[in-house]
Amino acid sequence: MPDLILALDVTEKKKALAIAEACAPHIDAIKVGYPLALAAGLSIAGDLKKTGLPLIADFKVADIPNTNQLICDQVFLAGFSAIICQGFCGMDSVKACVASARTHHGECYVVAEMSHPGGKEFFSGGIAEQIAANAVIAGADGIIAPATRPDRVAVLRGFVGDKKILSPGVGTQGGSVDSIAELVDGIIVGRSIYDAPDPAAAAQSYAAARRRQKR
Amino acid sequence: MPDLILALDVTEKKKALAIAEACAPHIDAIKVGYPLALAAGLSIAGDLKKTGLPLIADFKVADIPNTNQLICDQVFLAGFSAIICQGFCGMDSVKACVASARTHHGECYVVAEMSHPGGKEFFSGGIAEQIAANAVIAGADGIIAPATRPDRVAVLRGFVGDKKILSPGVGTQGGSVDSIAELVDGIIVGRSIYDAPDPAAAAQSYAAARRRQKR
Repeated sequence: MPDLILALDVTEKKKALAIAEACAPHIDAIKVGYPLALAAGLSIAGDLKKTGLPLIADFKVADIPNTNQLICDQVFLAGFSAIICQGFCGMDSVKACVASARTHHGECYVVAEMSHPGGKEFFSGGIAEQIAANAVIAGADGIIAPATRPDRVAVLRGFVGDKKILSPGVGTQGGSVDSIAELVDGIIVGRSIYDAPDPAAAAQSYAAARRRQKR
Repeated sequence: MPDLILALDVTEKKKALAIAEACAPHIDAIKVGYPLALAAGLSIAGDLKKTGLPLIADFKVADIPNTNQLICDQVFLAGFSAIICQGFCGMDSVKACVASARTHHGECYVVAEMSHPGGKEFFSGGIAEQIAANAVIAGADGIIAPATRPDRVAVLRGFVGDKKILSPGVGTQGGSVDSIAELVDGIIVGRSIYDAPDPAAAAQSYAAARRRQKR
């Protein structure tokens, strides 16, 4: 059964904490992006840790190795348990993130392909496959691949073996639990949960859908 | 004469502010990356603005359009005057950063090519050229291209016309003022200034070297 990961893409700290607490019983991890981290500070990790859930910093780290390491070190020291980095800055940049993750007993995931229209421009023609293969060589814990394109996730699975695949784009962006659950290790849902009239109920419903799928 | 831009890549706020103040008379802008912004908070922009210099947020923004816009909006509202984004996430992601820059009367620069070894893996084979061309179409103010490879900067100039080129990698990374000054609009120097025994003197020396070059 894949994990259910909440993409907590709200920028108000108070609202973020309320949604996280309400959804916590139904989800397996919380993903935080820069919009919330910049608005609330990295210390948001300390607040969110009270849910007892692992925290993933989705910072799509995309700099030279030394800068990547400085970013990741701060992320883990703040209390995050995983970092998401971009793979297109090359193997050395990914390895710097992985090294930081290892030092801090955390995880590192590499974006292999993106779910928005522009993601097709530079991640196509074998690039996503190469990034996925590099992620494995660099010792990353897995990749990020879009739930909106299950066929692509299936292809990328061939490049990462039993490494984890976490998949955003379920819900508002058009991806469905049914079409992706069997292919991935984590389903990332954002707006369909945090923008729902009752986020906890929405989270519970996604958790149930994912369970049904795996039977 | 190209601008001299200080890459203020120190993570201690107090040290960062002292170096910025000391170097201010000799430089034209200050570039801040995530390591400092995460450690000190985005409010570092408010402190650095006391130098009277433009502030460039080198966050290499690399997400989907909506997230890029949320990041850039916060950057400009904090007091930065320019944002640096990655071009690899496609035209729509770049356009989101440009739109935010326009709304806030700021500038947007797109990384066309990177200076570290891994930068050769995915930015080669015409990709950098395509990113540079996209930056122009998206309405960006210019691109970032490595001073360590003047031949590549010259090639990319052909794709961006009179848009600005800002060039990092001068000093410790091996790029020189002599080989790059005529090709670019801004020279970015980091360690060779902020790690110098006397950062102000080092900044003054780079400022003079750049002036000599332009005669």
